Amino acid sequence: MKKSVLVVGSVAFDDVETPFGKRQNALGGSAVYFAMAAAPFTSTRIVGVAGQDYPENALSMLKKHGADVSGLTLVEGKTFRWGGVYHTDMNQRDTLYTHLNVFADFKPVIPPHFRETPYLFLGNIQPALQLDVLSQIKEPEYIALDTMNLWINTTRDDLLKVIRKVDLLIINDSELALLTGENQLLKGLETAHKMGPKHIIIKKGEHGAFLSNETELFYSPAFPVQKAVDPTGAGDSFAGGLMGYLAGCDQIDFTALKKALVYGCVMGSLVVEDFSVDGLIGLSKARIDSRYAALRNMVTI
Amino acid sequence: MKKSVLVVGSVAFDDVETPFGKRQNALGGSAVYFAMAAAPFTSTRIVGVAGQDYPENALSMLKKHGADVSGLTLVEGKTFRWGGVYHTDMNQRDTLYTHLNVFADFKPVIPPHFRETPYLFLGNIQPALQLDVLSQIKEPEYIALDTMNLWINTTRDDLLKVIRKVDLLIINDSELALLTGENQLLKGLETAHKMGPKHIIIKKGEHGAFLSNETELFYSPAFPVQKAVDPTGAGDSFAGGLMGYLAGCDQIDFTALKKALVYGCVMGSLVVEDFSVDGLIGLSKARIDSRYAALRNMVTI
Repeated sequence: MKKSVLVVGSVAFDDVETPFGKRQNALGGSAVYFAMAAAPFTSTRIVGVAGQDYPENALSMLKKHGADVSGLTLVEGKTFRWGGVYHTDMNQRDTLYTHLNVFADFKPVIPPHFRETPYLFLGNIQPALQLDVLSQIKEPEYIALDTMNLWINTTRDDLLKVIRKVDLLIINDSELALLTGENQLLKGLETAHKMGPKHIIIKKGEHGAFLSNETELFYSPAFPVQKAVDPTGAGDSFAGGLMGYLAGCDQIDFTALKKALVYGCVMGSLVVEDFSVDGLIGLSKARIDSRYAALRNMVTI
Repeated sequence: MKKSVLVVGSVAFDDVETPFGKRQNALGGSAVYFAMAAAPFTSTRIVGVAGQDYPENALSMLKKHGADVSGLTLVEGKTFRWGGVYHTDMNQRDTLYTHLNVFADFKPVIPPHFRETPYLFLGNIQPALQLDVLSQIKEPEYIALDTMNLWINTTRDDLLKVIRKVDLLIINDSELALLTGENQLLKGLETAHKMGPKHIIIKKGEHGAFLSNETELFYSPAFPVQKAVDPTGAGDSFAGGLMGYLAGCDQIDFTALKKALVYGCVMGSLVVEDFSVDGLIGLSKARIDSRYAALRNMVTI
């Protein structure tokens, strides 16, 4: 039976420029990308905060994609806004501004009817808040965590506390090195597993992703798209596809995780083909499955 | 029946420092790495130049590994010498010096008894010399080409001439972008195929490698080693494993190429675990095949 997945993360407006165009007031934020990418697999529950400028049609789009937005509080003030410009090599970008606005005072409160959600994704927010979320959820079956260099550098103790409590740590190569002090992947994984998580995923962006369970490694390449237009939200969409798949089939064995990783790569590839969440709107299962099959075919001899 | 593979490339001494140690007068050069990596699969024929300081025991090691060194000329003067230091992140290195020495006047002459070698690897030398080599070989069955940014920037016309004549172009992401003017992988591949080669391999170092035949893509991750000690020669060892496998089974269909790519990744992983060519000495087929199986297992659901 399908289970729900709860995401706690940011809700934002992005002003984005890439070599392929420009978007103002684009819908963004980790919780929004996550929910849209999980939509083809299962229902989501969003916990986040936005300002009173957050548009009604964004909420209705999220609802149409299976998201329960009753944990998304609209408070007085403006929604979190990020502005950035991507270089010709879109692995490089400059942040023009980060206006936290109402997100600066975000204290996630899990509504009572969300407290027994079995699958939980802790988006990239302060570790202290992630810990607080954990204390509000009743015996989740599977918890995944995203984080970033900032928290590894500035709030390491809190971060280690939350890492100890999660099942899956999602991180990139350089963050793993920073977290563990190990430059070699396998050493870094070994050290990170000792911190708690039985599963670790190393995101490598356009190079795909690794999955480790201490004894085994699995790898999927990224799906090579015809044209990457806007890389914003690729990591959160990857996480949405991954966690959406796990919750949708309610399985967390290593085989399910492998499939989930490939679905994560699929959703990451779909989102970068258009600005904002546009590449994730109204996707058919057939489109997703054909890309999944293509990715599997790409590694098959 | 096993066929031979001929390699034209550099023969060098390397003075290398990595975070894991230091080696002076280490055996290096593209032709040497290539031949050592092809050794488990088939016999090689080396065309290159070294100085009279090139040690007899290096020649006998190459011979012991199935290399015919009768095309490796020892001339008056010193052997090509490269000195470099790798950073903690071993994707970064500083070149301390490049003394071309006798390699500066290298004009490859293919000995008569080498002129009908069916498999040919044109290592990374000036495109004009690569063209000259092609004119000396009689109807090779399969030709692979390595190149670099320097030649794309400085001798583009010659490079395009030689690219037009080869079956397989081996290149990395940034070189593909520079060669084609396309930052998107698929566009770059499409443009590069139009330049001639029916097969293209994109080397991505620690991220593995792509193979394209215009209509299909294949991907293999790199084998994650316990400890990468010295990345020098990884690309040439990859090429040696790849071409050695193809020549050894004398097949060049897409399935054989996929397997060859994986064997290339295996040989690349074995060489980086030790300094110089030490990781390639006396390898058993069992060791290679177990790593091949592990790589295949890593992408299997």
